Amino acid sequence: MDTDTLIQTETLIKVPFHDVDSMGVAWHGHYAKYLEVARCEFLDEVGYNYDAMEQSGYMWPIIDMQIKYVKPLRFDQVVRVVTQLAEWEYRLKLKYVIYDQTTGERLCKAHTSQVAVDGKTGEMCFQSPQILIERLGKH
Amino acid sequence: MDTDTLIQTETLIKVPFHDVDSMGVAWHGHYAKYLEVARCEFLDEVGYNYDAMEQSGYMWPIIDMQIKYVKPLRFDQVVRVVTQLAEWEYRLKLKYVIYDQTTGERLCKAHTSQVAVDGKTGEMCFQSPQILIERLGKH
Amino acid sequence: MDTDTLIQTETLIKVPFHDVDSMGVAWHGHYAKYLEVARCEFLDEVGYNYDAMEQSGYMWPIIDMQIKYVKPLRFDQVVRVVTQLAEWEYRLKLKYVIYDQTTGERLCKAHTSQVAVDGKTGEMCFQSPQILIERLGKH
Amino acid sequence: MDTDTLIQTETLIKVPFHDVDSMGVAWHGHYAKYLEVARCEFLDEVGYNYDAMEQSGYMWPIIDMQIKYVKPLRFDQVVRVVTQLAEWEYRLKLKYVIYDQTTGERLCKAHTSQVAVDGKTGEMCFQSPQILIERLGKH
Repeated sequence: MDTDTLIQTETLIKVPFHDVDSMGVAWHGHYAKYLEVARCEFLDEVGYNYDAMEQSGYMWPIIDMQIKYVKPLRFDQVVRVVTQLAEWEYRLKLKYVIYDQTTGERLCKAHTSQVAVDGKTGEMCFQSPQILIERLGKH
Repeated sequence: MDTDTLIQTETLIKVPFHDVDSMGVAWHGHYAKYLEVARCEFLDEVGYNYDAMEQSGYMWPIIDMQIKYVKPLRFDQVVRVVTQLAEWEYRLKLKYVIYDQTTGERLCKAHTSQVAVDGKTGEMCFQSPQILIERLGKH
Repeated sequence: MDTDTLIQTETLIKVPFHDVDSMGVAWHGHYAKYLEVARCEFLDEVGYNYDAMEQSGYMWPIIDMQIKYVKPLRFDQVVRVVTQLAEWEYRLKLKYVIYDQTTGERLCKAHTSQVAVDGKTGEMCFQSPQILIERLGKH
Repeated sequence: MDTDTLIQTETLIKVPFHDVDSMGVAWHGHYAKYLEVARCEFLDEVGYNYDAMEQSGYMWPIIDMQIKYVKPLRFDQVVRVVTQLAEWEYRLKLKYVIYDQTTGERLCKAHTSQVAVDGKTGEMCFQSPQILIERLGKH
């Protein structure tokens, strides 16, 4: 797989009222939901979504999440989450950047890492299983 | 079981920052969480909590929830949820009243109804299974 | 305004992974979010959304919510929320029905009621302010 | 202030049913709530909680959050969040470790960083305002 042609997806999200806190901005913890919606679209795109993961006999729990908040998000704001593959050999690491859909301004940077866990033994895999590599390779 | 001696539990909850919306009050949808925490304490008390439900072979999905909002809840406010058994023969209906812990003012009234679903067949039970009646009767 | 031509909007929602509980179905409390997203689209349509409410000098807190759960919602399921005006003279009452977008099966029925509160005095209005009637009348 | 005597608080949290996902573990995004509850107790302890922040004329938005998930959290599990001051001169950085309350096993490591924003100008402060230093110093 050529790192020059990294898989990338884009997801639009409209900030709902119930995500906005008493400071008038999206509460920082809700971003994990935006990242997950974006991640699910990314995984749909590569043909290895949560259902496919389960069928392949692996769970992929999040083991690390980091979010850097650059500018606040507000009620009804439409944002674009750009999701990009960062690592895949030992874990699945995705990078995200959130932009304002209208102005293009960068609002947030984040990444998440997931590892494969064998569904039968419950043991963590030290290398990503072949199925992930195959699905990513098809892209 | 004598309706004069209805089972009742009390649960204290402190409104967290992330439940408060841009109007400065707890967002109305979060009350479902407060009711659930109170319901779990009630079910612990009668010896038929979510784990015991699962072991007994039944699931108890919520089929109806109604919440009447009397006064707003605010950040850091400590409230007392009083949970009371309302019906049990055909479904498990609980009534809740939320009070301010300091002033005793009534802030909210609610109820939830759950029915037993057979874990094997997935079919709804038209009468509450014997285990619920037993556990409630012991009280 | 003629009740025969009640205003109605439709909103599509895809159930996200983080709304699904350990029973494998959307947790009942999350429906309040689906109703709010649908309500915001309804209010956008009539030209009296949350921003317009604030500018008009009124807040419109939810005072009553009832949800009847007919069939469970599952991860990735696309549902259609049909929102309809039910009352407006003394309070704004909306009715919602949630359908499976593919099969058309009815999954949930709900309603919410909101009353106008004067932003300056903080007092509840016993009749809906003229601005709501006007906006609804234009429809 | 002597870094050898770093301020530390402990917060007990019981994982509620509505935080558990379809894998049977607390969904990773909910940890932001646990950290916030712990952070609020820490800030209460140092005498500079969210209300005091507002009165002092500063907002303290989260600009960075990182969570490392070591072991899953399960329904009804009681966990202890240990919160410790890490930096204060230019930003308020707190470190958190989550332990199982019964076994003492370490389940999660995290940190959050907040910066002061002037409530009037909306501008970020490049140094922490004097009030934070004073409150921390009293400890």
